[in-house]
Amino acid sequence: MRVFEYPARETWDSLLARPTRDAADLNAIVADVLAQVKKGGDEAVRMFEERFDHVSLDCLAVTPEEMKEAEGLVEAPLREALREAHRNIGRFHAAQRFQTHHVQVTDGVECWQEAKPIQRVGLYIPGGTAPLFSTVLMLATPARIAGCEEIVLCTPPGRDGKVHPAILYAASLAGVNRIFKIGGVQAIGAMAYGTESVPKVYKIFGPGNQFVMCAKQQVSLHDVAIDMPAGPSEVCVLADASSDASFVAADLLSQAEHGRDSQVVLLTTDAAFIPKVQDELAAQLARLPRAEIATESLEHSKIVLLHNEEEMMEMTNRYAPEHLIIETSNYMELAAQVMNAGSVFLGRWTPESAGDYASGTNHTLPTCGYAVAYNGVNLDSFLRKVTFQHITPAGILDIGQTVVEMARGEMLDAHARAMSLRMEKVNRN
Amino acid sequence: MRVFEYPARETWDSLLARPTRDAADLNAIVADVLAQVKKGGDEAVRMFEERFDHVSLDCLAVTPEEMKEAEGLVEAPLREALREAHRNIGRFHAAQRFQTHHVQVTDGVECWQEAKPIQRVGLYIPGGTAPLFSTVLMLATPARIAGCEEIVLCTPPGRDGKVHPAILYAASLAGVNRIFKIGGVQAIGAMAYGTESVPKVYKIFGPGNQFVMCAKQQVSLHDVAIDMPAGPSEVCVLADASSDASFVAADLLSQAEHGRDSQVVLLTTDAAFIPKVQDELAAQLARLPRAEIATESLEHSKIVLLHNEEEMMEMTNRYAPEHLIIETSNYMELAAQVMNAGSVFLGRWTPESAGDYASGTNHTLPTCGYAVAYNGVNLDSFLRKVTFQHITPAGILDIGQTVVEMARGEMLDAHARAMSLRMEKVNRN
Repeated sequence: MRVFEYPARETWDSLLARPTRDAADLNAIVADVLAQVKKGGDEAVRMFEERFDHVSLDCLAVTPEEMKEAEGLVEAPLREALREAHRNIGRFHAAQRFQTHHVQVTDGVECWQEAKPIQRVGLYIPGGTAPLFSTVLMLATPARIAGCEEIVLCTPPGRDGKVHPAILYAASLAGVNRIFKIGGVQAIGAMAYGTESVPKVYKIFGPGNQFVMCAKQQVSLHDVAIDMPAGPSEVCVLADASSDASFVAADLLSQAEHGRDSQVVLLTTDAAFIPKVQDELAAQLARLPRAEIATESLEHSKIVLLHNEEEMMEMTNRYAPEHLIIETSNYMELAAQVMNAGSVFLGRWTPESAGDYASGTNHTLPTCGYAVAYNGVNLDSFLRKVTFQHITPAGILDIGQTVVEMARGEMLDAHARAMSLRMEKVNRN
Repeated sequence: MRVFEYPARETWDSLLARPTRDAADLNAIVADVLAQVKKGGDEAVRMFEERFDHVSLDCLAVTPEEMKEAEGLVEAPLREALREAHRNIGRFHAAQRFQTHHVQVTDGVECWQEAKPIQRVGLYIPGGTAPLFSTVLMLATPARIAGCEEIVLCTPPGRDGKVHPAILYAASLAGVNRIFKIGGVQAIGAMAYGTESVPKVYKIFGPGNQFVMCAKQQVSLHDVAIDMPAGPSEVCVLADASSDASFVAADLLSQAEHGRDSQVVLLTTDAAFIPKVQDELAAQLARLPRAEIATESLEHSKIVLLHNEEEMMEMTNRYAPEHLIIETSNYMELAAQVMNAGSVFLGRWTPESAGDYASGTNHTLPTCGYAVAYNGVNLDSFLRKVTFQHITPAGILDIGQTVVEMARGEMLDAHARAMSLRMEKVNRN
């Protein structure tokens, strides 16, 4: 990790800059696949599955038999872990349930919001070397609590045409209705437009490579909502002289192993802590299966030495990290100063991996600095708050003149008349 | 309005279809203006103001003197109306404040959400024939309640280089920090990228023509969040034999006068009601200043006669209207069946124009069927819910094994180790 000692404020933005990707070349490729899926439906999806996932599928849907078979193929300890994680994620998200609260705005004018589930949602779970069953729980559990009627999941099959059993087990645990063996851009297209097999959904959630992300953005322009824009995963750790260097190194590495483009930042006020954490990094890295990926990621990662905690919090908020771990002794004081972050982990006993899997919080979070404007997935992500209002004749008399005055000021006479007609009728009675 | 009697269900989707616009030709024009603003800053903005708004501006910002002057230029009744509307909008949105609730997920694992305001937001208010001061209140009032530090507003000036005083008065009432005389795509670009004068914001809100909408979507791909995608405004009215035809006609017209592309739909179970409302429409239309616009809009608008209330609610939810006015006698029963809508108006004394201006609900709502996945602007639109968690050594022992099991199952050993290192230390103590 590169070390920056007391960098001048003018250099902070460039120091914290994320890598930028030019999506222009992706856009055309992705648009072409999407257009073919829109037009060709299942047949186009099968063709792309053959081309990109190297499988020939008769049936895109996972069958009930495959679901049943999956449970037996997952080892008991992992099944138990998935059940505990599902329970904790459920508890935290269920506590986010919205309570309707009727507001008497003024005499005879009552307004309120009601939470309505998004009826059909689509979850995308990437393939690759490891089965991301944790993301299945993170997305399907709140969707089910929200009351979404149809929860569709797409994930690329292996070359044997099967989906990893732990994905299927997690999906069944969390209440996914239908699972399709479709990956990549074709999965996003299938859920955005609908095909003969795959129902059209109203919102698509989940991570993916840059093709998948680009496809989500393209379909979000007209056809379907998406959870949020995304980029490489990232962590920012705050440490001081009291921090445990082995814990901090482990936390930095748990981000670095995600991918070569993972962003890892350590901010500290203690110069003496830096060599300690570097030694720990070297020692732990040596024993890591994904050492090659983590090493590459650490090469562009940063340790920044700052004068004091004010600077540390200012830099943190300017960076707006996806994950923020505060391992200083006064972590609650610093927590109160957090403005921009996706998810915050407090104290030495709270590693990011707790939230990645099982503490109950969601791990689908804004990266790339999007935390300044977006939050992570939560129960609200699967709901809409619809406003309702009810006005009585007394309410008409209370706000009527205001409405008429403003409507006329905006030269919208029919708006004014919809109110003045009612005012006249109330006054006549 | 065209009348459809008892249409077969298979025809509903085409009957309810919104007009589609091909944005392909817009995209290139908009992308060019955005790129020039990104590169040229204030100079490019001034050039486009000259080209599109036909004004030559020395200073893009509205000055404190102009703000002071504005108050005196707004007539007292309108000032009073704006104050009442601001108060009601404030009451309803303040009632949406989020209460942090600490969740003890399991022994030693505490998780919670905290609402953090988006620090810098940008509001766009279109120009045109009428000053949309109501939208200023609808956007700036909740932004201020949310605690946004910087609320920037862009609106095109008239040919005299001035902004309508009612816009300025509403902005000052609602707590806008800085106002710029910039319209169209150049305004969206200025707020998305920042210029010498205009601060870069994190989220952009507000309506606009199709160029502005296209610009918002383009900048939302990488640079800034936006409130929601948008299209022509729309209303769906439900009526039965008990409804007041003059009220219903007034409500339909108050939508039709918005623009030639406004979408107006009336669903009813009472065949006899249709000629009554048609007569009222003709009579009221004759006395409307914007009759030409309303007439054109009504030409593609629809009256649908249905067999029963089940059909009425099914069609409503399939249409997912921006505004839904239920003027049947049993409006509360039907309200309970609403799934997809932006804002719902209940009973004969609750016209849409109440919510457009002064009842307290927001009028920035999802159009074009986006209500299936989006809600309108509310207090949450100006906030992010950041998750926090704190785990104790007891919590480590409670969820530790689950995290380790899942991390290993996903082949993320550093994730497992960040937890197992802590488990070892707890067990040693």
